[in-house]
Parts: sequence; C-alpha cells; structure tokens
Amino acid sequence: MRLSDEQARERFRRSRVARLATADAEAVPHVVPVTFALAGGRLCFAVDHKPKSTTMLRRLRNIDQNPPVSLLVDHYDEDWTYLWWARADGTATVLPAGTASAARDESVRALCEKYGQYAGRTPQGPVVRIDVSRWSGWCASSHAAT
Amino acid sequence: MRLSDEQARERFRRSRVARLATADAEAVPHVVPVTFALAGGRLCFAVDHKPKSTTMLRRLRNIDQNPPVSLLVDHYDEDWTYLWWARADGTATVLPAGTASAARDESVRALCEKYGQYAGRTPQGPVVRIDVSRWSGWCASSHAAT
Repeated sequence: MRLSDEQARERFRRSRVARLATADAEAVPHVVPVTFALAGGRLCFAVDHKPKSTTMLRRLRNIDQNPPVSLLVDHYDEDWTYLWWARADGTATVLPAGTASAARDESVRALCEKYGQYAGRTPQGPVVRIDVSRWSGWCASSHAAT
Repeated sequence: MRLSDEQARERFRRSRVARLATADAEAVPHVVPVTFALAGGRLCFAVDHKPKSTTMLRRLRNIDQNPPVSLLVDHYDEDWTYLWWARADGTATVLPAGTASAARDESVRALCEKYGQYAGRTPQGPVVRIDVSRWSGWCASSHAAT
C-alpha cells in the first residue's frame, strides 16, 4: 500500500496540480493549489498570470518565515479502492522576481515545458524551489499502484 | 474573483475530497487528503476503514500539539479560466474512538449520509471536528463562479 520514493516522485511527474501546505512562524497552517514542475530533482512553482486573491502572497510570507513545506498530489475516485496520494516534504526557497539566476531559469523552463498555458505568458513573478527531503505515498490497492 | 463565505462553504458542501493541512509544534506542515462532511456548521472527518500507511496518525498528533488547521477543496482544469478553490481555516478537536458523545454521533451521521462507501462500515476511529473561523475562496473567472 505504501509507494516507494520513486513511485511517489512519478505521481508528481504525472500530476497537473498539487496542494502546497506552508505554516507561519506561529505554526498556523495554510494550503493552496499550485501548478508545479520537477526541475533537476526539485519541485518548483511560480507566481504567474493567474489572477490572485489579496491573500496570494501568504504562501511566500510563510516560506520566508518558515521554510518547511509539504506538497500533495492525489486521486479521488468513488471506488475507494482506486484512491492514492503522494507527498513531498522539503524545504522551500523563494527566488524573487527580477533576479536572474540559473536556478530561476531552470525552474521557469520546466514550468513552460509542462504547461502549454504558459505559452506567451512566461511566469514573471517570484519562483519557489523545493528541496525534497522525503517522497512518500499511499495507494488503496494493487490496482491503484500503477 | 473572490468567493463569498457562503460560496466557499457551498464548494465544500459539493466536494467529495478535501486536503487537510496541519503543522506540528515546530511549525512543520503536513498535508493529506480527507473525505469529510459538514455537520452543524462544522467540518468533520473520521479515521475510517480505508487502509492507512504507518504515518496515518500524524494528522492527529499534529492536531493534539497544535489545533489550527487549513482545509482546501479545489478544481483543476486545463482551461485555467475554470480554476477555483475554497479554503476553510479553523481549529480542530479530536474526539477519540470509543467515547460516546452527541458531537461524535452527529459527525459520524453526516459522514455516513454523504458517503455511500460507509454503508455497513461506519467509521469507528477517532473523529475530528473543525470549528471554521474563516471561509474563503477564489475563482479564475465569472464562468467558474457557479
């Protein structure tokens, strides 16, 4: 029922959306959906052109205060024998907008390769990179394992 | 683009799976998918018969140490104008297994009414109830607002 590190990483590779949990310095958690990519073994996402609510930057504020993050991809099905999830726990770093770096370029390139939606709209905002210390995951049955 | 409290609550009412973010006393976040229900204005979920990994209880340990939680429901679509999410931030309480209470009964009843999968398999484990202090949400465009 447990997924291996490699299986968990593969679920991330195949998924189009993840949920990012951060916490502020007072340990109050916060969760948002993110579009993301794998780049050089790290997970990354960017503040992009999708309209944001006024609280959009809380994820970045939390990471500045407290770098540990947890990301989840999962599958829901009314047949619960098909359920699975994969999680990446790690440490996040914010690369601010307007700072050129190989790390930033690599992340933006991976995001643009994964999402056609970024065509002509390359993310210009801060980029977040996550060094994953632990990949884990679960599936409900052997037919959810592939 | 922002959803009202009532719209956010309604997205939870219609959703079959949520993602629960907790954090431990050291502010390390953790995120898992949960099946959940609304009962008496609170959100609730239970430790049920779905097979668990060995880390299954981390969500409960975190809540014991640190009651603030954040839950998310969201919709992903390749047409990003259809994206939306709703979040419930609040405080969680664990009702241990084997303790009879009106609160526990109400939660289990709401879960069984919502999920046919619980027929004949009423959740027997700990129940978690969340007093929501803030409902919030976002949608990418007016056609994602309904």
